Amino acid sequence: MAAKNPSNRMEIRLAGEGGQGMILAGIILAEAAAIYDHKNATQTQSYGPEARGGASKAEVVIDSGEIDHPEVIVADVLLAMSQEACDKYAGNMKKGGLLIVDQERVGRVPSNRAIKVPISRLAEESSGKSITANVVALGVLVGLTGVVSREAIAKAVTARAPKGTEEMNRAALSAGFAAADLVGKKHAHKS
Amino acid sequence: MAAKNPSNRMEIRLAGEGGQGMILAGIILAEAAAIYDHKNATQTQSYGPEARGGASKAEVVIDSGEIDHPEVIVADVLLAMSQEACDKYAGNMKKGGLLIVDQERVGRVPSNRAIKVPISRLAEESSGKSITANVVALGVLVGLTGVVSREAIAKAVTARAPKGTEEMNRAALSAGFAAADLVGKKHAHKS
Repeated sequence: MAAKNPSNRMEIRLAGEGGQGMILAGIILAEAAAIYDHKNATQTQSYGPEARGGASKAEVVIDSGEIDHPEVIVADVLLAMSQEACDKYAGNMKKGGLLIVDQERVGRVPSNRAIKVPISRLAEESSGKSITANVVALGVLVGLTGVVSREAIAKAVTARAPKGTEEMNRAALSAGFAAADLVGKKHAHKS
Repeated sequence: MAAKNPSNRMEIRLAGEGGQGMILAGIILAEAAAIYDHKNATQTQSYGPEARGGASKAEVVIDSGEIDHPEVIVADVLLAMSQEACDKYAGNMKKGGLLIVDQERVGRVPSNRAIKVPISRLAEESSGKSITANVVALGVLVGLTGVVSREAIAKAVTARAPKGTEEMNRAALSAGFAAADLVGKKHAHKS
């Protein structure tokens, strides 16, 4: 059993609309951490009235030690794929937490430190299918945070990709990594 | 907001091996409850070392009121799709809880009250694909417990079925309902 080390805990919230694949993204991220990076991970969805309104949210907790509480308490990372998701969850983040938004869908951000990436456009451009936006988003998130290794997320994406879509999903993930590299540099220059 | 009513809480554990679709089954069951039956639901996976050994487990909590704790504490229902899953989790069930096993894969059960259904064989026979065993299992579980309505689970299965597999999945679900009706009757006769 891994040693208990609470400082290692990373709380990630992926939020958007139904059909954007947030739940699958959460599963892939948790599997990358647990199966390929040998950490512990939990992955949770809570469905209430907002699920019937079309909102979708997945929560992932990753820790090298044991995980007592499987849900996000205060997020280290928020991915917001809709304006509603950004408005709803941006207030529940750690100080210095990372907010990533899909620039195509989120016009108003609560802080100039938010990372805006044209995620759905990159999905279209890299893979020809907007449905891969969740995988582009995983590429951005992992590229910026290193919460799991790039190798682990690539393996987890491929393992969950429906037959015949592996290539398309790999392209989407690479586009996400590339965007992270560019954004990361831009931020480094600014500071 | 629905009234708090702890006696309504149903804790369901779906356990088997990776590739048997336990996680997807958990998502479908939670969505049936929340989106189509207007209850609250949570769905959780915890991945530890056993995930790397190939075990897979999904937990679903359904309540008409609010859900404080998203994980299964003591299961009301256990679906065991492998001998390992049965051995590991059958001890953590409520008295009078319902244990459903895939008769094709689980030889030893801890109680003569366990419900044995040839789930993977029914999947093959009804849909031609053993991959639908998770949907057959949902049909059995919902048919026996009524934890969500048959209509809700049918809608949730169809909404999550990959394009072109809707018919196959509906057939698998119907086979599960039929098995539940048969098993239910047999049990009623026994007692």
